[in-house]
Amino acid sequence: MERLTPSAERARFRAGLITPTSGLAPGFAQANLLALPQEDAFDFLLFAQRNPKPCPLLGVLEAGEVSSPLLAGGDIRTDIPSYRLFRDGELVDEAPVATDWWREDLVAFLIGCSFTFEGALQDNGIRIAHIDQGRNVPMYRTNVDTVPAGRFSGPLVVSMRPIPARQVADAVRITSRYPAVHGAPVHIGDPAALGITDLSRPDYGDAVDFMDDDVPVFWACGVTPQAVVAASRPSLAISHSPGHMLITDARDLTYQVP
Amino acid sequence: MERLTPSAERARFRAGLITPTSGLAPGFAQANLLALPQEDAFDFLLFAQRNPKPCPLLGVLEAGEVSSPLLAGGDIRTDIPSYRLFRDGELVDEAPVATDWWREDLVAFLIGCSFTFEGALQDNGIRIAHIDQGRNVPMYRTNVDTVPAGRFSGPLVVSMRPIPARQVADAVRITSRYPAVHGAPVHIGDPAALGITDLSRPDYGDAVDFMDDDVPVFWACGVTPQAVVAASRPSLAISHSPGHMLITDARDLTYQVP
Repeated sequence: MERLTPSAERARFRAGLITPTSGLAPGFAQANLLALPQEDAFDFLLFAQRNPKPCPLLGVLEAGEVSSPLLAGGDIRTDIPSYRLFRDGELVDEAPVATDWWREDLVAFLIGCSFTFEGALQDNGIRIAHIDQGRNVPMYRTNVDTVPAGRFSGPLVVSMRPIPARQVADAVRITSRYPAVHGAPVHIGDPAALGITDLSRPDYGDAVDFMDDDVPVFWACGVTPQAVVAASRPSLAISHSPGHMLITDARDLTYQVP
Repeated sequence: MERLTPSAERARFRAGLITPTSGLAPGFAQANLLALPQEDAFDFLLFAQRNPKPCPLLGVLEAGEVSSPLLAGGDIRTDIPSYRLFRDGELVDEAPVATDWWREDLVAFLIGCSFTFEGALQDNGIRIAHIDQGRNVPMYRTNVDTVPAGRFSGPLVVSMRPIPARQVADAVRITSRYPAVHGAPVHIGDPAALGITDLSRPDYGDAVDFMDDDVPVFWACGVTPQAVVAASRPSLAISHSPGHMLITDARDLTYQVP
């Protein structure tokens, strides 16, 4: 596959290309977007501080800003392949450009994405089922509550990867080194303890097949903010479309600790 | 030394004891305090997000809150040994209780403290000069700017520990495992590159003696917010007095990543 730089990828999206971003610009961090009115920004910033595993902030664009060093020369309203518009917590539109929806008072939160640690897992010889099977990662709403902050509350959403029993400890060790992009798993094994009754029916993304010795391993997921928007119903919210992430100029390795 | 629980230590301070907290309640995280009016809270929360090495947030008490799970059953206005009051960036008072200064609209930020990783360094056989020499850690204002956010900007303040050359790599490895409490060093060696002209004249704390093979190692410091308050001049700010920290109920090991 041809490898483009993050800015070249963003230029393609700005020009109209709509595609999931998994595997693009390998080695560079991708990010979830959530933009909220300034009046809700303190509450969400506090929510992210209190819930660093599902909402690890890579950057924040203040009201009136549409670019940042994470997307040098770019525009947050156009440089993601696809956007979603929420009013009062309801998904009301999806489009490749968010410029018409944008307002001067919006604050844009860029939230880390597990694509970063998936590369590290693969580099360490751990296969990622949903990549091997050509599917989107399976994600589940849990019965675990996030820590509320101001007007924001809602359920923790997790992503799940089947990991061979002999590699679960390695998967923990490797992803623990990336606290800025969801970090260590939040749960290993028994899905029922999270309120997940059927792994074959994820709430977001696609189901994946298990091998005989695979253990389900659950990580906090960057889709949590969308579940929180649905639960907390801010007047306006703009997000990326799932799987269609912002490709940033930050290298994955920037977020690794020993 | 008698070992009290964090809540027992806080009760002594609430009853009027004024003492530096270094070495008290070993194994439990201590925290810097900065309380600001709600109108400045978003800007400072964003400042902390952008400057996680000097300002790693362990918790935030929203306006009207005076306790939190970090100080269960406690009161942030009384449970620190000594407080400082700043008006328009100027230090105007110091007292063992902040209740008379407190306002309903204050938001209290609890910021991680390097005492947490000092314990880990000592456990790994690395001696801490300022502890061995019975002094406060030396701290220096640098010529490195923090990343501004809203009304807040100012210089990075660093703490310095002389580390034997053969142990510098270990000190990096060990402190890197604590990204929530300043993490890895920001600079190793040559003080001049940070704009520090004389290690024997720190801007805060005490100078320490070097052994022959010691290298100066610099970590981002939780006193940075006080330098930022001086530079940014919010109308009101309340902090702890340097060295007189909040002793929290959170275990140091909570903040360790592999």
